[in-house]
Amino acid sequence: MAPKYAPSLRSRLAPFLLFLQIGFIAVYYFYVEVENNGNGIIFKNFYPVFQDLNVIVFLGFGFLSTFLVRYGFSGSGFNLLIAVIAIQWALILNGFESWYYRGKIWIDLRSLVVAEICTASVLISIGAVQGKTNPVHLTIMALMEVFGFILNEWLLQTLLPVRHLNCILVLHIFGAFFGLVLTWILYRKESQQGFEKEKFDCKTGLFSMLGTLFLWMFWPSFNSILMERNFPERRLGAVCSTYLALAVSAVGSFAVSTLSSPKGKINPTHFQSCILAGGVAVGVSMPVIRYPWEAMTIGLAAAAVSTVGFRYLKKQMLFAFGCHDTCRVLSIHGLPGLLGWLIHLLLQIQQSDDRTIAIRFAVFHICVLLITIAVSLTMGIITGVLLKWDIWRPPQDKKCFDDQTFWKFEHLAIRK
Amino acid sequence: MAPKYAPSLRSRLAPFLLFLQIGFIAVYYFYVEVENNGNGIIFKNFYPVFQDLNVIVFLGFGFLSTFLVRYGFSGSGFNLLIAVIAIQWALILNGFESWYYRGKIWIDLRSLVVAEICTASVLISIGAVQGKTNPVHLTIMALMEVFGFILNEWLLQTLLPVRHLNCILVLHIFGAFFGLVLTWILYRKESQQGFEKEKFDCKTGLFSMLGTLFLWMFWPSFNSILMERNFPERRLGAVCSTYLALAVSAVGSFAVSTLSSPKGKINPTHFQSCILAGGVAVGVSMPVIRYPWEAMTIGLAAAAVSTVGFRYLKKQMLFAFGCHDTCRVLSIHGLPGLLGWLIHLLLQIQQSDDRTIAIRFAVFHICVLLITIAVSLTMGIITGVLLKWDIWRPPQDKKCFDDQTFWKFEHLAIRK
Amino acid sequence: MAPKYAPSLRSRLAPFLLFLQIGFIAVYYFYVEVENNGNGIIFKNFYPVFQDLNVIVFLGFGFLSTFLVRYGFSGSGFNLLIAVIAIQWALILNGFESWYYRGKIWIDLRSLVVAEICTASVLISIGAVQGKTNPVHLTIMALMEVFGFILNEWLLQTLLPVRHLNCILVLHIFGAFFGLVLTWILYRKESQQGFEKEKFDCKTGLFSMLGTLFLWMFWPSFNSILMERNFPERRLGAVCSTYLALAVSAVGSFAVSTLSSPKGKINPTHFQSCILAGGVAVGVSMPVIRYPWEAMTIGLAAAAVSTVGFRYLKKQMLFAFGCHDTCRVLSIHGLPGLLGWLIHLLLQIQQSDDRTIAIRFAVFHICVLLITIAVSLTMGIITGVLLKWDIWRPPQDKKCFDDQTFWKFEHLAIRK
Repeated sequence: MAPKYAPSLRSRLAPFLLFLQIGFIAVYYFYVEVENNGNGIIFKNFYPVFQDLNVIVFLGFGFLSTFLVRYGFSGSGFNLLIAVIAIQWALILNGFESWYYRGKIWIDLRSLVVAEICTASVLISIGAVQGKTNPVHLTIMALMEVFGFILNEWLLQTLLPVRHLNCILVLHIFGAFFGLVLTWILYRKESQQGFEKEKFDCKTGLFSMLGTLFLWMFWPSFNSILMERNFPERRLGAVCSTYLALAVSAVGSFAVSTLSSPKGKINPTHFQSCILAGGVAVGVSMPVIRYPWEAMTIGLAAAAVSTVGFRYLKKQMLFAFGCHDTCRVLSIHGLPGLLGWLIHLLLQIQQSDDRTIAIRFAVFHICVLLITIAVSLTMGIITGVLLKWDIWRPPQDKKCFDDQTFWKFEHLAIRK
Repeated sequence: MAPKYAPSLRSRLAPFLLFLQIGFIAVYYFYVEVENNGNGIIFKNFYPVFQDLNVIVFLGFGFLSTFLVRYGFSGSGFNLLIAVIAIQWALILNGFESWYYRGKIWIDLRSLVVAEICTASVLISIGAVQGKTNPVHLTIMALMEVFGFILNEWLLQTLLPVRHLNCILVLHIFGAFFGLVLTWILYRKESQQGFEKEKFDCKTGLFSMLGTLFLWMFWPSFNSILMERNFPERRLGAVCSTYLALAVSAVGSFAVSTLSSPKGKINPTHFQSCILAGGVAVGVSMPVIRYPWEAMTIGLAAAAVSTVGFRYLKKQMLFAFGCHDTCRVLSIHGLPGLLGWLIHLLLQIQQSDDRTIAIRFAVFHICVLLITIAVSLTMGIITGVLLKWDIWRPPQDKKCFDDQTFWKFEHLAIRK
Repeated sequence: MAPKYAPSLRSRLAPFLLFLQIGFIAVYYFYVEVENNGNGIIFKNFYPVFQDLNVIVFLGFGFLSTFLVRYGFSGSGFNLLIAVIAIQWALILNGFESWYYRGKIWIDLRSLVVAEICTASVLISIGAVQGKTNPVHLTIMALMEVFGFILNEWLLQTLLPVRHLNCILVLHIFGAFFGLVLTWILYRKESQQGFEKEKFDCKTGLFSMLGTLFLWMFWPSFNSILMERNFPERRLGAVCSTYLALAVSAVGSFAVSTLSSPKGKINPTHFQSCILAGGVAVGVSMPVIRYPWEAMTIGLAAAAVSTVGFRYLKKQMLFAFGCHDTCRVLSIHGLPGLLGWLIHLLLQIQQSDDRTIAIRFAVFHICVLLITIAVSLTMGIITGVLLKWDIWRPPQDKKCFDDQTFWKFEHLAIRK
């Protein structure tokens, strides 16, 4: 069927993963311990939300890309691989300060949660390069991006007068820009005509619906999980806001999808991106939302912005910039993230009585955005240049978006 | 392939949804606020069960109808649309009293939960008309039914000496009768021969199994969630009873399904309805169940009654009354709900020592049923007449039960 | 298509299940009550983890075997049937002591949890005989194995100086050996050439991925759930250890799977077994794990051992011993369980300062293993001999691994 086989990963992936994993174990051997004098109450309050987050990270993001007809195993399997590597790596990097001052890294449920949220930035970026990369690429990308994300947080906390930055605020923007610049560097000519196997399938499409629904349902947990420490009383507010924003963006996505289609039909991949947009935008602007209607308006605006991104920018990005965005990262995370950032700015200015404070906040807020985008693009470019190297054996164009490039199906049932 | 296209919803669905959503936002702008002086403990106890309920409402009910070979996206997507509209609407209607006396509607996790349970009545009814309606129909139906359900609750609390009615008691009966009368009014001749695309498929059938399993697993949360306020110590009882009733009705459904099939085989759609019947019946009769064996007997009886409904009444309903019940609402919710009501009556009479109290309760209990059925049928008929109007552009008979009527699949993989 | 029909189960399954279920209800009528003087705090802490366990038992184990192209409904449906029977039976057997001393069996959330863990041993064993048995076989097997498992626990507590045995320690070894000896006795010649319908399918394979992911994600809940009573402060440790072990075994399974394949591809069924191996091994050796790196090393070793079992022993088992292991029970539960047992022994010896205590522990630990294997094999042989009886109407070889042997699909969509 195919003229030649995809390059074997045996000599690349296996040694690389083993080397990495044994390295991690060595670091953990010397420096990592479980925090065991914490009280049980925090654990009990945190645990259910922690499991919701696991479902988001491993199942939600994993099954989001199963709409591709032949990429279900790679989509969900590589997502798992990247997530577990990124979590181990993020635990080490996040514990750097603790190691520096106390000699040890202490992990508890909270540090696992923070590590998973850092990991989410990688899982967002993967969406842009899905199908055109191999697991070695994705692993390197995970290491680089988690490093970049934590570097960005450290820069923000060092350069700007901020104490406890909730990393969800910059997560979506960082992830989206990193992914987009990476797919721009890894551009293949084949993208213009469309890849042979980059197809949608109704049967496997339902798996993607399932993943989207899990993301959608548990997004309130995602947005509220780190509210615990600073503002315990604000968790209810965060849950209600996210819930309503998601509800409105689901209604909005039906409306705008029908409206923007000539025959008044709904595009399922568009619909799936769009219903998540509200959660992204509201997550970024969470600290300033005080009323349900604000969250709902943000949800509607996010659905509209996401549609514009999907309908008009996706092709522009491809043809004008050569930026092929498999899972519509720009319209799920990029644009709604920027929208959330803008609304955060506007609401904060409107809420502050003193003009000096408002201006000071605006400067601060713009700096956060610029630093984040700068770090994200820089790390994305470095990663892209690294991944261009042929030593990692990228799949040929004909082997892109195909599970059989990486997976061996034994005793396969022949569909008669 | 088809002689003509299904009518476009562009000029109907999009303006209607946008108008509705902007209307909701306006109402929320003036009247709705998040309750923020609640203590964190209630939130922490409630939150995990709230997420279970979300899985039931958005995923369980959504995937229940994916057994139809070409209706997976519509089944799960429209379920989501209807649920989010109904929830926003129910929050407003449920807060009417609070608005009247306090000028504002305060929402918290509990009011979201109550709104979701009101929504469940709509999701039950949708099962009866699934595949033969378009999203505009379903949205109107959601608005009417939530209104009817809350009106019914208000009538019960006004006319009868009841303080805190647990709305689960009347949920299934209300939803089932509403759906059945609606599908009776929307009757199409095509139903007699069976719709061309109303087929079962083994592959997508597993999605339906998944939805059923989530409903089945999280049903104890559904039945116990509103026990919190009045009888906190009864939550364990509610969980154990529901759990055991569901277990027994799973065993029962295997037994009766094999018994009622000439070749001793199990019918998967029947099996899926039947395993849920126990949870319905036990939910309705919850307040009087004191021993595990009572719950278990109810589970077995519900499985038997549900089978009778499925095996004998479904065809009768269709041919004698012209009532085409896509998702077997009668046998999942209607009959087990009535059974639960009857058992509630019998057990309460048996448990009360005083004959006067027993008679008084019987009168009260029969009134609850009659009022509920009356309101349900009335609202169902009004809704049905409204939906008969051709202005909503119902799909042609040939376009029923077909995702492609409403969804546009781009880059669709051709199955060779 | 097939020369003759599979034997009808109408006269076997239905009466058997009804008899069994009515028997259970009778026992519950006389002896079982819900514990209602417990305080609400335990309930609230336990409930979320209890629901995670439900997802593992009913969904995770159920969907694990859906990788077989035509066995999805049987895999998930029979899993549900067996689980609910085994749970009711385990509640009775576990309450025997309470019945003996107090005249009643009191059930609460904890006893449901213990019953579900006993049930897990059956669900493990079923993996070995999946596809070659009918539901009557599986029900008998469930009754026998739960009895055996609880007998084993009772023997361990009676013969050895142990107070509160965490039954997860012996669960995997018991289940695996029981299943393997059973499939050895039920050996069919057809196994040598491979069954006609024992095929893998990419579409349904994703359901299996979903089940595996749910098992994988909620495994920390499974391993930590019974830590509550004895060591509340150790639950965080158990969660972190399991989490890290699972993460490492996911990385490890990618590495060893690529390494052991000539073309460097990943085998999805192998991958799915392998990522769970870490959770099994770490669960068995939980009491002695003190540092994260220990859990991680165990995860890596388990992935390696599981691969060896999958790659080399599976065929050996089949051809040398005539032991056809459908769901690779040996490599998911058997070998990682033994590995965990060995590591438990080694770490305990290394941690104890006193040589006498170390030797005493070693003797004790070896006795636990020997008694468990002895009881498991004995019960497996008895069950196997019982199931060999033709009265249970086993499916013919040609009807193995086929949903249509047991399920009747009405209005089936014909795939054109």
